[in-house]
Amino acid sequence: MNGDWTWHGGALAAAQRHFGGDARDWIDLSTGINPDPWPGVASLAIDWQRLPEAGALTALETAAATSFGIDPAYVCAVPGSEIGLRLTGRLIGGAAHHVVPAYRTHGAMIAASTPVGADDMMQHGDTLILANPNNPDGRCLTPDMLAALLDRRDAGSWLLVDEAFADGDPAASVAPLVGDGARLIVFRSFGKFFGLAGVRLGFVIAPRDIVAGLRDLLGAWPVSAAAAAIGTAAYRDTGWIAATRAALPRRAAALDAMLARRGYTATGACPLFRLIETEGAGALFERLAHARILTRPFAERPDWLRLGLPADADALARLEAALG
Amino acid sequence: MNGDWTWHGGALAAAQRHFGGDARDWIDLSTGINPDPWPGVASLAIDWQRLPEAGALTALETAAATSFGIDPAYVCAVPGSEIGLRLTGRLIGGAAHHVVPAYRTHGAMIAASTPVGADDMMQHGDTLILANPNNPDGRCLTPDMLAALLDRRDAGSWLLVDEAFADGDPAASVAPLVGDGARLIVFRSFGKFFGLAGVRLGFVIAPRDIVAGLRDLLGAWPVSAAAAAIGTAAYRDTGWIAATRAALPRRAAALDAMLARRGYTATGACPLFRLIETEGAGALFERLAHARILTRPFAERPDWLRLGLPADADALARLEAALG
Repeated sequence: MNGDWTWHGGALAAAQRHFGGDARDWIDLSTGINPDPWPGVASLAIDWQRLPEAGALTALETAAATSFGIDPAYVCAVPGSEIGLRLTGRLIGGAAHHVVPAYRTHGAMIAASTPVGADDMMQHGDTLILANPNNPDGRCLTPDMLAALLDRRDAGSWLLVDEAFADGDPAASVAPLVGDGARLIVFRSFGKFFGLAGVRLGFVIAPRDIVAGLRDLLGAWPVSAAAAAIGTAAYRDTGWIAATRAALPRRAAALDAMLARRGYTATGACPLFRLIETEGAGALFERLAHARILTRPFAERPDWLRLGLPADADALARLEAALG
Repeated sequence: MNGDWTWHGGALAAAQRHFGGDARDWIDLSTGINPDPWPGVASLAIDWQRLPEAGALTALETAAATSFGIDPAYVCAVPGSEIGLRLTGRLIGGAAHHVVPAYRTHGAMIAASTPVGADDMMQHGDTLILANPNNPDGRCLTPDMLAALLDRRDAGSWLLVDEAFADGDPAASVAPLVGDGARLIVFRSFGKFFGLAGVRLGFVIAPRDIVAGLRDLLGAWPVSAAAAAIGTAAYRDTGWIAATRAALPRRAAALDAMLARRGYTATGACPLFRLIETEGAGALFERLAHARILTRPFAERPDWLRLGLPADADALARLEAALG
């Protein structure tokens, strides 16, 4: 198996080169991006000519904060949660553990960070980085469990929670616990739930001195005019958000039922992706790729395969046929 | 005079609130952004749904490097040259001087940096930050003068050249001097020459270890799908670039001639903006603002006013009438 597929999801052009076909033939299930994106992009007028004004950034952060149910004073828009993770890691530094398995960047954002398994999370008091829901296994911790992890921190250490996949279930978010007195930082991603990963927009929710440190690294125009316009309108679209929160679990359940018919058990509580565990995961990845369906294998776990949500009934049927 | 206008250019919404009128009434001459933007945006299909693939970033950096006349190995795309300046400053740190007057961020990107006047640039051997062409006075140093400044650096120090306004005259660029053996870093901006500042796209041209350090801060998706698509197509549009390089000096000359008729002498060798020096600059800013023309005053130099290029003959005529 080529290492490309186990690095990040979304390498569809590389898959086409390797397995053949053209873009329209392929179904990309290698990421956890909502395949039914927020539909308002086409009707937005984006001013590419001017620098985004300060008011546009404030409007974006206020719309996002309102959607997250928090005070905008603790919200810093960033050009993708990936950059938000990396810059925050540099600001904090120090001794850290990152929970594995998880998103690769969690192990890279603080230089001295050491991996720790989920069962041993409570054993260390230094800075802890984890995702909730976790990727790729979809494990969800309750806010009480996260509060216990926050209490466990040594003086000067932080709890960093990557909520990139949290939009589906707002009750699971610990963003409302962020404040100047708490050593808690939460990361949110725009592109996954809203299905618009190309926009590059995320948010760091942190005490105000961390927000100020990030603004100092980013300067006056941290996100594009498009990100400001699209993000502001999408976070204000409470009807679409509510409908999508209701629809995603139904779609995930349909995927689970199909997988069960084919003898696979899907794990995870996040409706944007499913993980299956099977001895033949590598061979299954290859078989699906030859049927022009890209999934996400893992170098360190050759028995895992992650699948994003199929976009529609046709895609689900093609996946079922390819599973054989 | 309200401090807003002297912080950054482009605060048109604030100007409308303060002086009245609506957006269509106003002419914004407060920035150095080409008012005649690259026209290809409307015909580009931008894939907002997917994460930009690695190949899209490579294509963008290759197109930009070709336009700059350099090896793409030394080019790192960043989501705006502002972020590029700030992150590079953090990577380098140490003792530094920044040439003043210049762009405000030059004094903020390295914590310990001290201002130095242009006449005293050769007196220090630590890291030196300057813009060429300079903003707001349009001063241009020759590549020979910049090479002398590079030679003057102490071991371990850097010459940082912000070429945000250099696209009009490629012969003035020192980007071709960048390499692994030189302590030289060059910053380029997409939005100014191409007139598309809302895209947020810039480039850091640096030795490969600095490029690697920046990529480590930025992660796998440093720029949006739109920035990759628009930037790649625009840098490949050699016909538009050549025509714009020819047109901008003609337009600047027309502005200079009109200003001379009204008794003002414009300084500067960069065709994207002009600086006039007049005792009544503050009153002139106010008078132009009441005529719905926004220009750029400077808190520390109340005798300066910077003007961007008017978009067309009508805008030039309105400016002439308002100058009285």
